[in-house]
Amino acid sequence: MRQAGRSLPEYRAIRGSGSILEVIKHPELAAEITLQPVRRYGVDAAILYSDIMVPIFAIGFGVDIAPGIGPVIENPFRSEADLSRLRNINPEQDIPYVLDTIKILSQELKVPLIGFAGAPFTVASYIIEGGPSRNYAKTKSLLHTNPALWNKLLSSLTDISIGFISSQIQAGAQAIQIFDSWAGTLAPSTYHDFVQPFSKKIFSFIKTQGVPSIHFGVGTGELLPLMGQAGPDVMGIDWRIPLSEARNRIGIPCALQGNLDPAICLSDPKIVKNEVENILLSAPKNGHIFNLGHGVLPETNPDILKGIVETVHIFSQKINKDKQ
Amino acid sequence: MRQAGRSLPEYRAIRGSGSILEVIKHPELAAEITLQPVRRYGVDAAILYSDIMVPIFAIGFGVDIAPGIGPVIENPFRSEADLSRLRNINPEQDIPYVLDTIKILSQELKVPLIGFAGAPFTVASYIIEGGPSRNYAKTKSLLHTNPALWNKLLSSLTDISIGFISSQIQAGAQAIQIFDSWAGTLAPSTYHDFVQPFSKKIFSFIKTQGVPSIHFGVGTGELLPLMGQAGPDVMGIDWRIPLSEARNRIGIPCALQGNLDPAICLSDPKIVKNEVENILLSAPKNGHIFNLGHGVLPETNPDILKGIVETVHIFSQKINKDKQ
Repeated sequence: MRQAGRSLPEYRAIRGSGSILEVIKHPELAAEITLQPVRRYGVDAAILYSDIMVPIFAIGFGVDIAPGIGPVIENPFRSEADLSRLRNINPEQDIPYVLDTIKILSQELKVPLIGFAGAPFTVASYIIEGGPSRNYAKTKSLLHTNPALWNKLLSSLTDISIGFISSQIQAGAQAIQIFDSWAGTLAPSTYHDFVQPFSKKIFSFIKTQGVPSIHFGVGTGELLPLMGQAGPDVMGIDWRIPLSEARNRIGIPCALQGNLDPAICLSDPKIVKNEVENILLSAPKNGHIFNLGHGVLPETNPDILKGIVETVHIFSQKINKDKQ
Repeated sequence: MRQAGRSLPEYRAIRGSGSILEVIKHPELAAEITLQPVRRYGVDAAILYSDIMVPIFAIGFGVDIAPGIGPVIENPFRSEADLSRLRNINPEQDIPYVLDTIKILSQELKVPLIGFAGAPFTVASYIIEGGPSRNYAKTKSLLHTNPALWNKLLSSLTDISIGFISSQIQAGAQAIQIFDSWAGTLAPSTYHDFVQPFSKKIFSFIKTQGVPSIHFGVGTGELLPLMGQAGPDVMGIDWRIPLSEARNRIGIPCALQGNLDPAICLSDPKIVKNEVENILLSAPKNGHIFNLGHGVLPETNPDILKGIVETVHIFSQKINKDKQ
């Protein structure tokens, strides 16, 4: 339940104002924010309090995260010359605070810690568009009209993501989630030609590290076979597609993660429980991580999330009992 | 090619500033804006210069269309009491200018005129959220927590849409497109229970009028079978799903409309031509209306659109010749 923190009063009490990119420079604080939802909800894993733009920020590309908006880029990527503004990260120098946060969490957590990184397409879309976009017109225009430059940019972002992932695993992250949040805007043929090769390289790298990987995006129904071929162990599924249908469409074996609509969490406990149970019943019997299909909405009542965790735990205990 | 006008210099020359809701009050001007892309591109049909929020605006609900943003609602729909702010339209009194525009166009056009209306879900989402939304949290929350109120609201919006459609047909519109632009945010089961019955009522009505109907939305891959069951003659398909796959998924017979990504139109003529030809080759041989998968982006070069129309016409002439 990503971004579960922002609906918590204890989070708002310690978060302070300012960009997440500044907050995470304080490892004790970032670790505490990571721990809060685990403590309150008893979830089975923690996800690092961080952002996919962290490495881009750390190498000085000029990015901020505007609360309620998302990443905002001062000087968006426009041409060949902008490639020189990107370089591989040197984790100890560029993001020592991320590594320190993970080290604290490795001591404190009794559940696995999930680290994460942005997939090259989604990071590219932010730095090209200059921020969140409705239609990704500039990104698509660049990839179609200048595939040579696109490939250089994505290669560079792939290397940066791999450096970011590698350092998180070395510091103690026990699983990695790759966010290609906005890939769903692409036609399958475009994804295949311009995106899949780079995502594949990332999942191949994670496999060499011996930690499980999760692939995530929204509105990716038509891309599931291609995203599955990129090689994750687990595929994140949003609420637009039933898990059973997603399972069929992916084809190749991998576990599924999802897929409650976060907006359902704004309704009554009874409705939520019913929806959660429907998902659990329709999920593949081997290989399902219950989750929301996207981040927790800030206006969500924490008691609703607590109820969801309880429902899932009761269900999985019953399944395990039946197996014995 | 909806919203083709806004990329035209001749449109910008006569459009003036201010909301579209004010511009369309001048029938000669609205007719001229409708005619401009037909004249320049030689497309095979015209789509009325209008907006799905026109009837809601005309009954005084308090809506404006902010340029570059979309509909903005002064006092969003919040509770039972807001139902009294909705009423059926009286076309002659509420929207005489729309009818006058259609009458002018019926005289001037040599190609069919497509009228249109918003589907109840998409109109409801605007008046509940207060404007465009990322997650439709308020809309989903209302439908799940207060289905009785949701049903009253959607019934009312269905009646309003039917009144709007009926008056357009009587004035001379020869086809009707129903925009459920944002239905793709819904899980199929939610669409089935809370949306489909109302859309079905609209398509049943259009059938009684003897004019063809088109159903449109973006990101609707998983909803296609349910949207098809609502009863349109033509289903609009966005670029996220290949036409052949869409054809299989819908199941029941209907023609397809689409599905070029509007962002492709920002690239080179050669790339565009290639994409257009790929779509034409993959389209069902009987029953395909070539179109973009969404509105034309304002920054599109008109020459690109002219090239698309030419490519489509050359292809269809060849097909017709082969048939003889």
